[in-house]
Amino acid sequence: MTDALAIARELLRCPSVTPADAGALGVLERLLRDAGFDVHRVTFSEPGAADIDNLYARIGDAAPHLTFAGHTDVVPPGDVAAWRHDAFAGEVADGVLYGRGAVDMKGGIACSVAAVLGYLAANGGRPKGSISFLITGDEEDVAVNGTVKLLQWAAERGEKFDHCVLGEPSNVEALGDCIKIGRRGSLSGTLIVDGVQGHVAYPQRAANPVPEIARLITALSDDPLDHGNEQFPPSNLEFTSVDVGNAATNVIPAQARAKFNIRFNNQHSVETLRSLIEQRVAAALSGGRLKARIEWLPSNSGAFVTKPGPFTDLVVAAIEQVTGRRPKLDTGGGTSDARFITHYCPVIEFGLVGQTMHKVDECTPVADLQQLTAVYRGVLDRYFA
Amino acid sequence: MTDALAIARELLRCPSVTPADAGALGVLERLLRDAGFDVHRVTFSEPGAADIDNLYARIGDAAPHLTFAGHTDVVPPGDVAAWRHDAFAGEVADGVLYGRGAVDMKGGIACSVAAVLGYLAANGGRPKGSISFLITGDEEDVAVNGTVKLLQWAAERGEKFDHCVLGEPSNVEALGDCIKIGRRGSLSGTLIVDGVQGHVAYPQRAANPVPEIARLITALSDDPLDHGNEQFPPSNLEFTSVDVGNAATNVIPAQARAKFNIRFNNQHSVETLRSLIEQRVAAALSGGRLKARIEWLPSNSGAFVTKPGPFTDLVVAAIEQVTGRRPKLDTGGGTSDARFITHYCPVIEFGLVGQTMHKVDECTPVADLQQLTAVYRGVLDRYFA
Ligand SMILES: [Zn+2]
Ligand SMILES: [Zn+2]
Repeated sequence: MTDALAIARELLRCPSVTPADAGALGVLERLLRDAGFDVHRVTFSEPGAADIDNLYARIGDAAPHLTFAGHTDVVPPGDVAAWRHDAFAGEVADGVLYGRGAVDMKGGIACSVAAVLGYLAANGGRPKGSISFLITGDEEDVAVNGTVKLLQWAAERGEKFDHCVLGEPSNVEALGDCIKIGRRGSLSGTLIVDGVQGHVAYPQRAANPVPEIARLITALSDDPLDHGNEQFPPSNLEFTSVDVGNAATNVIPAQARAKFNIRFNNQHSVETLRSLIEQRVAAALSGGRLKARIEWLPSNSGAFVTKPGPFTDLVVAAIEQVTGRRPKLDTGGGTSDARFITHYCPVIEFGLVGQTMHKVDECTPVADLQQLTAVYRGVLDRYFA
Repeated sequence: MTDALAIARELLRCPSVTPADAGALGVLERLLRDAGFDVHRVTFSEPGAADIDNLYARIGDAAPHLTFAGHTDVVPPGDVAAWRHDAFAGEVADGVLYGRGAVDMKGGIACSVAAVLGYLAANGGRPKGSISFLITGDEEDVAVNGTVKLLQWAAERGEKFDHCVLGEPSNVEALGDCIKIGRRGSLSGTLIVDGVQGHVAYPQRAANPVPEIARLITALSDDPLDHGNEQFPPSNLEFTSVDVGNAATNVIPAQARAKFNIRFNNQHSVETLRSLIEQRVAAALSGGRLKARIEWLPSNSGAFVTKPGPFTDLVVAAIEQVTGRRPKLDTGGGTSDARFITHYCPVIEFGLVGQTMHKVDECTPVADLQQLTAVYRGVLDRYFA
């Protein structure tokens, strides 16, 4: 049971809907221990969140140290009746493997384990350097007891990583079309406008916060934050809600609130971005009895990028040789655990094709599992050459 | 018990918090029957609303027919502990009468009854024409079983009114400073913008309704509806709420809703105003995948005005003679039953000073009761001269 499909099917049969583990990490623990890895299971806790199991496994003690990161938790299957194949059976039909996590990202983990086992078998059971796995059960939900703590735990043990491959489904259309080399940062806040309550028949006695917040929303939505750069698209601010909650048709309300989220590139830090937005609000405010302020949510994800260089070149070469495609080096899309890993070592994300992730009938062609295993093997061969 | 203070105190002692009558109409019924009026008590019903008692009393059968309108229901006293004088005791202290309804509008009704009784006593018990009272117990809340139905009932009986004095507290600072000769209309609606839901990291796949509704709110708030005229200030639109209710910081919502109310003058009807707003929304909409529509609430109050002329001149003259003040002919402020009466005959509103209405320690100087009674008597003398 050391080929990617067999490992993937065994992982898919564990219904590890976040935060449940359902035996998924145990599958990896047995495989890696049998291959000579030093395997640690570490549980992290946080008030108000579920305790979460994590796995760290390493073989070799020399540099360079390449680590494969990933998560075994999956999002819920949604309407199970809508699935053509049981979400937790690991069924293969017409050369396609079905199941929740097939691409996000039990399939990716299976390929990395299969590739490493193949590499070790071909190299006398020991790498020329070190290989490790950083696997969490807490990525899909709050992500507080997962990779962020596992990295701290490893650092306290003296673990040093040189490079990381995170096996998230990075490809858009076909295996090999995209490597994620960074992500934009994310910052959320609430814009609050305080006015003066009153009766609609006497608007001059009141100060209506609704048209004022509308003006501020327009100002913040229309002014670009930057124009992007070689690695990143322009930063973007989206208002996600605006709320007053006034049920009385004849009352001018005292307050209006609007929530927004910013996805920002490496031209900003959380601090510079906060100042910029606060300056823009102050400049656009019409004043008088209307006041505006922002309540910021804590942000644990600044923008980051793994600059193109020898490591990305090596991954690109492995992808091109196996798939015949030259991957785009991309920084788009949502957040991932790479935002934590980047503080420890350069990280790239390359995995399966993401089209069916989080959807009904999540699936991957079995051929993609074989090709991704070959890509990872190509990375290992080049990395330790 | 035929002076205004005595009648007012008896009315104030009935805790007729809307929709309760608590004996208030009975006080009027006895007084008017004793004075020779033909008195009718009429109860109206509506599914989902309380049954409401109303009173119609008439003396005389010739034209002209002057009717005094009013309401005996009052708003709740609020925090009773905060009142310096019991809200339902009709206490007089230092020449001031306290109680819920003192100015809005049991005091006004008491003055009109006292004035009519005085006029009849001085004129052999019969008017040179007809005098009536249209009194409801359903003004302060939903106003569905009150004046609107009492007028229909009277019309079906063949009653014709030539002029009406509604005794609402029309004065702002001092007795005699203001007659209401009309009111703006009121129209409410909800502006709904439908977009396309999506993830904040992929805004190009979504269509965010929040900045769009902000733009529409700004457009509708900034464009004047008209510039007012001799009788009316400019019409005014106020947004009273804007709501999305999206708790997820990373989701662009599918819909945003904004509630608004328009107070409009006699340059618009409900129909022309609806078209105007719908045209402005269509013109301001940026289009694409964003759609906008308006859900209108039913409106039963269009704008109306009693044009200055012989009737208003006569009331002004009576006020000037008694108070020494020349009243402003005003159309500002909130709604009243005059919006129903205007469909039957010209109506003006003149009563006590409104400063304490709906507040703790609602009160009126006893001197104002005496002056208002004298004003109404002056109106009667001139009207039937
Ligand atoms: Zn994932
Ligand atoms: Zn009133």
